[in-house]
Amino acid sequence: MILDGKQTSIELQNKMAIEVQNRKKEGLKTPHLAAILVGEDGASQTYVNAKVKACEQVGFDSTLIHLPKETTEHELLSQIEALNEDKNIDGFIVQLPLPAHINVDKVFQQVKPNKDVDGFHPINIGRMVKNLPAYISATPLGILMLLEKYNIETAGKKCVVLGRSQIVGLPMSILLARNTTIGNCTVTLCHSKTSNIKKHTLEADIIVVALGIAEYLKGNMVKKGAIVIDVGITRVNDETKKSGFRLLGDVDYEKVAPKCIAITPVPGGVGPMTITALLHNTLLACKKEIYG
Amino acid sequence: MILDGKQTSIELQNKMAIEVQNRKKEGLKTPHLAAILVGEDGASQTYVNAKVKACEQVGFDSTLIHLPKETTEHELLSQIEALNEDKNIDGFIVQLPLPAHINVDKVFQQVKPNKDVDGFHPINIGRMVKNLPAYISATPLGILMLLEKYNIETAGKKCVVLGRSQIVGLPMSILLARNTTIGNCTVTLCHSKTSNIKKHTLEADIIVVALGIAEYLKGNMVKKGAIVIDVGITRVNDETKKSGFRLLGDVDYEKVAPKCIAITPVPGGVGPMTITALLHNTLLACKKEIYG
Repeated sequence: MILDGKQTSIELQNKMAIEVQNRKKEGLKTPHLAAILVGEDGASQTYVNAKVKACEQVGFDSTLIHLPKETTEHELLSQIEALNEDKNIDGFIVQLPLPAHINVDKVFQQVKPNKDVDGFHPINIGRMVKNLPAYISATPLGILMLLEKYNIETAGKKCVVLGRSQIVGLPMSILLARNTTIGNCTVTLCHSKTSNIKKHTLEADIIVVALGIAEYLKGNMVKKGAIVIDVGITRVNDETKKSGFRLLGDVDYEKVAPKCIAITPVPGGVGPMTITALLHNTLLACKKEIYG
Repeated sequence: MILDGKQTSIELQNKMAIEVQNRKKEGLKTPHLAAILVGEDGASQTYVNAKVKACEQVGFDSTLIHLPKETTEHELLSQIEALNEDKNIDGFIVQLPLPAHINVDKVFQQVKPNKDVDGFHPINIGRMVKNLPAYISATPLGILMLLEKYNIETAGKKCVVLGRSQIVGLPMSILLARNTTIGNCTVTLCHSKTSNIKKHTLEADIIVVALGIAEYLKGNMVKKGAIVIDVGITRVNDETKKSGFRLLGDVDYEKVAPKCIAITPVPGGVGPMTITALLHNTLLACKKEIYG
């Protein structure tokens, strides 16, 4: 079974579009997402543009603030403060990566927690850990939504998460271990210091790969009947494509897919779900469902 | 090797005592810990008294606020607010468990993060997850301090944590997986929904048992050469003791210890380290080292 993030996103976004239409009819506020992009990174521009476009499609308002790569940390923090205070903006994101001269932690601590729809502020992470209402980061949340959509049973399953990044691997490992419907897994978090990753993945019922290494997970690393979630997205040059590149996941799909009972493709798996989860969080923000 | 929490605590507390003496000589503030105890639970009274006594021993000021078990949530929150505002109090704790009519999450969110020396506020948990300066809960921190004291190599080790409680198991699993000196383990978090826990523990280099089930971990669940950290502390009736009870850990010590290269005893292992870690956090609070 292919866990179709594209199709699932269309369905979930259609639902949101209807809800937004109804809100407008009732004279309620239209959700409004703002995004700050610093610099000219090609992939980042693509991602931000996709988020803005998705807002349009579901009827959200959106604002893109594109700052030059020379923007100082102080200027960026001031811009964040302005969005914190702007009553018309329900939530906003700061697209990663940021230029090296800007302290990422400082930036995310400046975002007001109730507008932190990317869920990167420490208080949202802490609330997630404690299973309190929280904005959950878009990629992990998107994965949970996808597993839920396909009624994947997770309780008691052995789950291996590859990669301990702050934005995917680590929160994913925490979320899947929680005592919640999509959760209750026995989770092992593997990373660069793990010896014999293959031994871990071979025993796993569910594997989440979030390393950013193209085609890392090979066919001989996966047991028959596994469920594989591929978070990777690497651009490799491909002159046969109009864009000049194609996208590869962290999974050697050709070899791994035949062994799986469920797997996400790249593209069309976790990527679209990330955007859908961001829209979901923005709608929550507009409805003040997390912080009241 | 016995990881002697009692002896380690004496050494670390002696260091703190000297630092406090020097602070007093220099006219700097004396660290001041307050503790709120609600109700008459016997074990809780013992724990709080031990914390107050430890404060005296290292030269901290301490305040014990003992409220009746009928205290309303509102009254407790007001008491917390008073401590938040009291400039003389550097940090304070609310002893668990609380009576059932009080919402624990509300209570810990009321504590000002810079006085939250138990590290239970979501923002301290989030900062810990992100590896930012944070108050780390006393029991996990005490375990880290003990492992550090005995120069235990953790990087690349397979670690199994039994129990996903908010105050021990879950933070312990996060801390041991971080890219830090005492960290970089490949951590598996096991809990009530885990099937075949024995299979996991048998493969582990380091086992942290935090289930609260007396003598849960048996000799046949541990491989030779393992390191075992016993967080459990259960009172069982024992008429031969003056107190009428004795303390049991979560580990069948007699059978497990001979297989281990290092193990914590109960009592005298994690328990004293928990108190030492709390003192450590209080000293940090007094020196404003976490939040400036």
